[in-house]
Amino acid sequence: MRSSRAWQRPTLGAVAARAGVSTATVSNALNGTGRLSETTRQRVLAAARELGYAPASTARALARGGTGVLGLTMTAYGDLPVPYTEIPYYAQLALGAISAAHERGYLLMVMPSSLSPWMWLNTPMDGVIHVDPRADDPVRSLLRERGVPMVCDGRPPQPHWGDVWVDIDYDTGLRLLLDHLTEAGARRIALSQPLHDNEYPHLIGRAYASWCAEHDLPTLVEEYASLPDYFTAEREAVSRLLNRDPRPDAVIGIYSDSGHNILAAAGYHGLRVPQDLLVACISEDADYAATTPPVTTLSLRPDRVSDEAVDLLIALINARTCVDRHRLVQPVLAPRRSTRGPVRRGNGTL
Amino acid sequence: MRSSRAWQRPTLGAVAARAGVSTATVSNALNGTGRLSETTRQRVLAAARELGYAPASTARALARGGTGVLGLTMTAYGDLPVPYTEIPYYAQLALGAISAAHERGYLLMVMPSSLSPWMWLNTPMDGVIHVDPRADDPVRSLLRERGVPMVCDGRPPQPHWGDVWVDIDYDTGLRLLLDHLTEAGARRIALSQPLHDNEYPHLIGRAYASWCAEHDLPTLVEEYASLPDYFTAEREAVSRLLNRDPRPDAVIGIYSDSGHNILAAAGYHGLRVPQDLLVACISEDADYAATTPPVTTLSLRPDRVSDEAVDLLIALINARTCVDRHRLVQPVLAPRRSTRGPVRRGNGTL
Repeated sequence: MRSSRAWQRPTLGAVAARAGVSTATVSNALNGTGRLSETTRQRVLAAARELGYAPASTARALARGGTGVLGLTMTAYGDLPVPYTEIPYYAQLALGAISAAHERGYLLMVMPSSLSPWMWLNTPMDGVIHVDPRADDPVRSLLRERGVPMVCDGRPPQPHWGDVWVDIDYDTGLRLLLDHLTEAGARRIALSQPLHDNEYPHLIGRAYASWCAEHDLPTLVEEYASLPDYFTAEREAVSRLLNRDPRPDAVIGIYSDSGHNILAAAGYHGLRVPQDLLVACISEDADYAATTPPVTTLSLRPDRVSDEAVDLLIALINARTCVDRHRLVQPVLAPRRSTRGPVRRGNGTL
Repeated sequence: MRSSRAWQRPTLGAVAARAGVSTATVSNALNGTGRLSETTRQRVLAAARELGYAPASTARALARGGTGVLGLTMTAYGDLPVPYTEIPYYAQLALGAISAAHERGYLLMVMPSSLSPWMWLNTPMDGVIHVDPRADDPVRSLLRERGVPMVCDGRPPQPHWGDVWVDIDYDTGLRLLLDHLTEAGARRIALSQPLHDNEYPHLIGRAYASWCAEHDLPTLVEEYASLPDYFTAEREAVSRLLNRDPRPDAVIGIYSDSGHNILAAAGYHGLRVPQDLLVACISEDADYAATTPPVTTLSLRPDRVSDEAVDLLIALINARTCVDRHRLVQPVLAPRRSTRGPVRRGNGTL
């Protein structure tokens, strides 16, 4: 590949020139420091990406006595054998974090979900992104003891003073989804709700309830155990929802496979989607573009979450002030045929 | 999540019992040692996964003076800004390698594509999986100098004695795809061929040519520059193929976005897929299930490749003999509407 051999490693100045900013701004953008608009930061990172600029921060970190390595921990389910890398949200989060770290000259190590304390205490890391902290999270306390700079992906259940996190704007996300469903004709929108001790289900539940109150619509919720097998558990929960009289005209699920689970339950009840029932879920799973029918999803933008988290963590490691320590990522709606209304009224059984 | 708190870390014996094998076999399966059938190995890993068994190999590695860390390097495009984590094959390879390492009690670090030698020389790693080695690969030489155990993903262009690799059975894969196209009625199957100095395009080209010779069918090949922008370059190459008289009745692309590129070129020529032209590509991209029409793909099984590579690397690190040092992964065909024949004869322009 001659082209790449001829290619010259670009300078900080080349990136600055391409982005039309100062070299100081480039270095701020790459180190997550200073006060930069999101637009500028993204423009600089894009320029660096286009030119293949690789900062030597890891070398600098080593020189400083750091390791140049960031850790990403996914322990939301403790020791349970959860195949994180097969769950689209976590997969995209991990890949996004790896490339965000590389863009800024750091390495990133995804840690296993297993909770062996020696690992958190001994693996050399300059800082850690801790995903979905739970109530009384053992890893969170360990890392705090060890004094490792830590950014939480997701607001901790009981935040301590000084906790730093990237959160997702669930209120706005749920509003997008619920408004979309009402525009499609839904008036009885149900929520299939997992029981778990991270904040995610609670935050979604609260956003759903307050939207319903605001719009003077009923809250229809069925809970299910998220472990060990949420597939069966959620199908049964949705089945209970569909047995209600009057039954819901839309069902929302909040886990990656919820859309498949809801479609299965609807099929079991002889309901056609979207004619008899609208279906949507919060998921990053590309498969929903090819289901029958394709299912509307709300994306939590793990790519943006990981980028913000790495950015913030590197700022913490470099002990920079003037950075926003609580960042908020906006979800995005992908409307598909499963919510193409208006829904047919009636009891909907064949 | 009370359930997970109550959950007890399983023992080696528990895994052995569940898999119906001896504890020695479990340890062989996890350390990639001994002579085990693939079935047994998979059964043990499945049992370990189900029980959430996390071996303490990393702790043992540290005790041995190792780091317990494996590296994965993707440098096929040198310093060029290739967003590996956004390319489905590399994304699945990285995620698969991370989880395969975790299953065996190791950590895995994905290295940036940038070629800063200090990194390869200084980052502590017990061994490295080197993806798509190129001719005169600088990273490969560096790692050999450093004496780091290395497994290549992909047969190196000029293998040295003692090189260890996991390869993909391209001959069988191409045979699957080409037989499928002829069954759909194709007789003039064209190949859109990128120019690059890793082995992949050459191996595919050879497999294609020998199949055509065997079946007494013409080889129709157009080459394009894989860098910097293979989207435009491949559309133009396919366009040249479709301008031939008689024109091809099927086109195969070998990069992840080739299917999209070929569909675009076919549209530009007013050809309907599959009526006027069959389209297929080698890709792991789930989006092809939702394109118009859905595109037939050949999967190179990055999940299996990464699993074999991690398995083999850990065997090397533990200096085990009796392991097969050249492993072969079988591709899998996903037939979709873009190859549903028989294709209509004629010049195909509207």
